[in-house]
Amino acid sequence: MSFDKPSRQASEKPHEKLAAHLAQDLTAVNALIRDRMSSEHAPRIPEVTAHLIEAGGKRLRPMLTLAAARACGYDGPYHVHLAATVEFIHTATLLHDDVVDESAQRRGRPTANLLWDNKSSVLVGDYLFARAFQLMTDADNMRVLKILSDASATIAEGEVLQLTAAQDLATDEEVYLQVVRGKTAALFAAATEVGGVLARADESVVTALHTYGDALGIAFQIVDDLLDYWGSEQTGKNVGDDFRERKLTLPLIKAVANADATERAFWVRTIEKGRQEEGDLDHAIALLTRHGALEATRQVALDWAERAKVALDVLPEGEIVDMLSDIADYVVARLR
Amino acid sequence: MSFDKPSRQASEKPHEKLAAHLAQDLTAVNALIRDRMSSEHAPRIPEVTAHLIEAGGKRLRPMLTLAAARACGYDGPYHVHLAATVEFIHTATLLHDDVVDESAQRRGRPTANLLWDNKSSVLVGDYLFARAFQLMTDADNMRVLKILSDASATIAEGEVLQLTAAQDLATDEEVYLQVVRGKTAALFAAATEVGGVLARADESVVTALHTYGDALGIAFQIVDDLLDYWGSEQTGKNVGDDFRERKLTLPLIKAVANADATERAFWVRTIEKGRQEEGDLDHAIALLTRHGALEATRQVALDWAERAKVALDVLPEGEIVDMLSDIADYVVARLR
Repeated sequence: MSFDKPSRQASEKPHEKLAAHLAQDLTAVNALIRDRMSSEHAPRIPEVTAHLIEAGGKRLRPMLTLAAARACGYDGPYHVHLAATVEFIHTATLLHDDVVDESAQRRGRPTANLLWDNKSSVLVGDYLFARAFQLMTDADNMRVLKILSDASATIAEGEVLQLTAAQDLATDEEVYLQVVRGKTAALFAAATEVGGVLARADESVVTALHTYGDALGIAFQIVDDLLDYWGSEQTGKNVGDDFRERKLTLPLIKAVANADATERAFWVRTIEKGRQEEGDLDHAIALLTRHGALEATRQVALDWAERAKVALDVLPEGEIVDMLSDIADYVVARLR
Repeated sequence: MSFDKPSRQASEKPHEKLAAHLAQDLTAVNALIRDRMSSEHAPRIPEVTAHLIEAGGKRLRPMLTLAAARACGYDGPYHVHLAATVEFIHTATLLHDDVVDESAQRRGRPTANLLWDNKSSVLVGDYLFARAFQLMTDADNMRVLKILSDASATIAEGEVLQLTAAQDLATDEEVYLQVVRGKTAALFAAATEVGGVLARADESVVTALHTYGDALGIAFQIVDDLLDYWGSEQTGKNVGDDFRERKLTLPLIKAVANADATERAFWVRTIEKGRQEEGDLDHAIALLTRHGALEATRQVALDWAERAKVALDVLPEGEIVDMLSDIADYVVARLR
């Protein structure tokens, strides 16, 4: 087994299987990313970008674009450009997120804002965002441009909404869903939808691909938020980050909704006022468990994964569609 | 004379004359900006944006797009969308600039990063940038999209280049010109060029409009950098900001090139090492004057303004073209 062409094995995870199936396309995406993140005049740009892009992300979003296009029979070259576009938008968002969250670590490595400075993270993020728009014009498809620029606006809107919703105990499940659609699902949905549009698939298929990406992204983010309270070393998540940053995610929203007066006072102190003390995180997790908030959140994630799989019924049967279905299962399987 | 419809007077400044001539278009641009900066879910967005967009900017960039389209005989509605696009890109850049420069004031008012926080400035800037791309897809013109996404990448690249070139005495006039093209001229040039493209003008006219915008932007930025050492209360510039931020602008580059050993030690201490003391700014201005650096910089700005005017010779004669020519004169007239 070589690293360049991973062979398929029964034990492989679904996204690894898909990566093996799309190996040639992914190699082209990586080459295009390296080419377009370069800058003739400002060497700081590829430095910062390489730090993040080569840090071993799973390339899940670009793979979704490649898979959607291939599943719809596309055989032109531009799914590669759109996949790189999606990865650039994602990377730009990560750079700006780390500035906003004042993060020190991502994927187990120091963040760019720590290694260089916030200034570089802001400006290199802007550069990648602009490069993303250049890349998507390569495909010469106005509908694709509209989908991706709409998604970009939804992402930014979701981030601002999260900023103002944080620390606010009045945040309900509806606002949470809007934030999640913005920060995660919008790009997943656009990633799969543009694959179908590029392949000139039937409208019903394009809609199904959007629905799949949207539901997959929501399930993915809910699981991520759940692991922030339920994680282990294995998941690579730093348990308690959201609590310390006073983010109102689904487990917390469910616990707050069921809180008695004493519990409410605890949430007001720790989340609204941000006066956190030693032992507060353990107490928070105990409250989440007592009210079944973790289990209820897990059930919501499972429901969204199921919706993602059902959406795929409209697509022509095939190996790639099966793998997309397995990925929906896998996203919530992290919880077992 | 009413504020809504300024009458034309002999004493009017050229950009005011142009604004009066384009009053109806500008009203449409302002309405579109207000509409598109709104957000159903995140009220923080229009708050931050309104603070900046309604702070009394001259709307010079969007006017250039309107003027270029009209000068080429365009009579459709989409020059308004592209003008709003250009203003959104400009505003997004300002929001991020103020975070990067840690500015406290812009146009005589506290900056958004000071009134809200850096997080809001970063994310609302991203939102406006995404909105800009949505707006430009309205015009349904792929060439326009390529021009504006290329310009956006050049802008971000110029900002990163400025970041790494600051504090570096080796920065020469060539690097300075690249920075200026990025931070200012790229958007001016794109603003005028897309007006011509939208109007389906001859290639020679489109090229001339690009050349005009590029040269005008360069002249504009050189004058801005000069006023940082040569300003007065009247110009609204805060003298010495660039010196304090250790930016290598043209006056400084010219003075450093002619410095003797003692003077070079002064520049190394104040700009490279950033150890500035009381009286250093006055001494810096004295050195700039002694070496004729201010006068030489002024001459470079005049040359670029002249190039802008010469480029207009290709365009069909008309009132708007005369006003564009007057604007090139006016940009450097701030120096008298």
